[in-house]
Order: sequence, then structure tokens, then C-alpha cells
Amino acid sequence: MKKDARISDAVIRRLPRYRRYLGELQRKGVDKISSNEFSNLIGYTASQIRQDLNNFGGFGQQGYGYNVNDLYNEISGILGLDKKYKLIIVGAGNLGQAIANYTNYYKTGFVVNGIFEINPSLIGKTINGVEIMSYDVMTGYVEGNDINIGIICTTKESAQEVADKLCLAGVSGIWNFAPVDLEIPENVALENVHLSDSLQSLAYYMNKRK
Amino acid sequence: MKKDARISDAVIRRLPRYRRYLGELQRKGVDKISSNEFSNLIGYTASQIRQDLNNFGGFGQQGYGYNVNDLYNEISGILGLDKKYKLIIVGAGNLGQAIANYTNYYKTGFVVNGIFEINPSLIGKTINGVEIMSYDVMTGYVEGNDINIGIICTTKESAQEVADKLCLAGVSGIWNFAPVDLEIPENVALENVHLSDSLQSLAYYMNKRK
Repeated sequence: MKKDARISDAVIRRLPRYRRYLGELQRKGVDKISSNEFSNLIGYTASQIRQDLNNFGGFGQQGYGYNVNDLYNEISGILGLDKKYKLIIVGAGNLGQAIANYTNYYKTGFVVNGIFEINPSLIGKTINGVEIMSYDVMTGYVEGNDINIGIICTTKESAQEVADKLCLAGVSGIWNFAPVDLEIPENVALENVHLSDSLQSLAYYMNKRK
Repeated sequence: MKKDARISDAVIRRLPRYRRYLGELQRKGVDKISSNEFSNLIGYTASQIRQDLNNFGGFGQQGYGYNVNDLYNEISGILGLDKKYKLIIVGAGNLGQAIANYTNYYKTGFVVNGIFEINPSLIGKTINGVEIMSYDVMTGYVEGNDINIGIICTTKESAQEVADKLCLAGVSGIWNFAPVDLEIPENVALENVHLSDSLQSLAYYMNKRK
């Protein structure tokens, strides 16, 4: 997948974390924070924070620090969270159901519109208010409802076929939970959540500690 | 969290991906692969692959490439996947249940021994052959069964308390799915899966493509 050439993937992946901490500060009524205080809180060096934020023009003021609301809003804008996204989930197993509950709980502009499934015993049920529909009608639904993101919670074996259909139907992003690397067109963004990769990294760090 | 000073986190995070591709090659009966072929398959440059693997002594031979079985086994060993791990899940909601199904399906040495829950209506049930027990008996269970990894699938509000109990009871790793940054002792490894962070990165890349 081709990424923005100027800003490294590592920086982009830190932005949601900055945003989470700033959101916590907002909830606590904190208006401003020095880069040192922010550093202590978030666990990156003050220099790292300045470098990261300088990628987007920088938001701090010498001798003042960061305005919490402004920085939160700027990062939200950079990530594209000032927009709304329509999502569908493909696969209504435990993981699909967990995601349906999860993303609806975290209402940051991502709204799950439907779940698609091949198992007839699940079709027609609702999960957290979201209807489970037949996989057969998925393409028409994506086209007719301007769905932006397809969430793949199927088996590894079905994932590429599902991705192909989603891309043809016009999604601009795929959030993939199936443990397989998908091939998708250049104009579609792909984010993989390889849960077993994460668990294997944990095993490495556990052994390094001994 | 303090990590191994010599090898970057980015390298460690690529190793499970190398291993996945090598596993696929094994299943297809491929014995050896040139660094260029491997590069085309996995999507990293041949130079990146050589650099990554040189961190661990390098495994390729000039003019031959990589022996698929050897490299697979070496990476498995580096990650600590030649060992067995005993896991418990805390929180038996959809996500906990999805993880119970998922990790049992991916039998790479990680075995879920039990699920712990406060909701009385779930206690006593089994998920994929794994019993749901009362959260009240978790500490004794972890101590008595030499549990290595605690998987936190609770709410954000409960996660730190659960982590504290798990660390005191003697786990050496925590796999955290609650959307909060945990404070844990230096001798315990922590791997966070912040699903909403991943979705926000996806939003960024979707907008970059327009």
C-alpha cells in the first residue's frame, strides 16, 4: 500500500494516541499543557512530540505549551475525524459482533450501517441496533448507501473475495481483521489488524524481560 | 514500556509478518526463496529484509537466498514461539468471546485456559471449550496454574484494576484490548490493541487518497 511520502507511518500511528490523551485532558477541564507535562503523561520525549507535530506545521507556542482544545481539534482534522464515515461489517461471528458493539460505543464519526453474513440463522437479527443482512445483497447496499469503509471479519479463506467485492462496490477503506494480506486497488486504503501478530510481538517482549 | 535497546520495535513488529509468509511458503512446499522473490511477495525491499534479518545474525546465503524452513524456525525462536504460553481472558463480552475463539483457532503455542467475568449470568458457561469463571477466583487461578498472559477485554474503567491484579498474581505479559494506557511494572510486557486508533489511521489514509 502506497502511503503519504512526507509523513512516516510511525507518526500517523502516534496521532490517535495524542488525540486520546488530549481528549482525557479536555474531560478533566485542562486548557493548556507544557510539552514537558505532555511528555510525562504520554510517554514520548518532549523532542519527539515537537518533531511529530512539526510534520503538520506545529501547534505549540514557546513559553506557553499546547492549547488542549486546539491541538485536539487539529489532530482530529488531520486524521479526518471531522467527517462522518459509513461502515459495514462483513461476517457476524463473535468478532463481527464485538466490532459492532465497539464502534457504536466509540462514536467518533464512524457509524456501522449494517452487517452482512452468509449464515441464514443469523440473518435478520440485530446487533446493538444494527441489522444482519444476507451477504448476497451486500454489493447493492454498499453502492446504494455510499458506504465508505468495509470491515472484514470473515475467515482468512473468504477475505480476498469479500475485499474484491467491497472495492468494486466503491468503498474507499478496508479494515481487515482476517489473518491474511489482501491485494486491493491503489485508490483504496487498507488497515490490517493482525491479532496474532500482536500476540507474537508480546511473546518476544516477555522473553526479553527474563 | 522499556524495550530491547538494540532492536527497534518496528523490526520486531515485522517479524510475525515474515513468519506468516514463510508459513504460507511451507504449506505450498517451497524450500528456498531469493531475497528478491521474498521482497515481491511480502512487499518490503530486499535491502529492508536483509537489514531486518541481520539484526538477528542474518540467515541468507549469497547466491542461494533463504531456506524457508530454517528461516521460519529461526524467526519462531526469536519471537519465543518455540515455547507454550498459558493465557486467561478477563471479560467474557463479545470481544472476550471472539478472542477465545480466535486464539484457540490459531494454535501457535498460545492456549486459553480460562475466562473470568463478573456477570453471574455468564459464569459457568463455556466458550469454545473454555470455562467462564468468576472474577473473584482469578488471582488464585493465575497463581495456581502458572498463567503467563492475561488478556484484558473489560471496559476502560476496570482495565487498570484488572492489570494490577494480574501483575501481582504473576503474569509476565498483558495483552490489552481496553482503550486505555495501562501502568504496569517494568518486569511485565504490555501489548496494547487500540482498535479505535487503527480505525483512525485508516481514516487518515482514506483522506490522503482523495
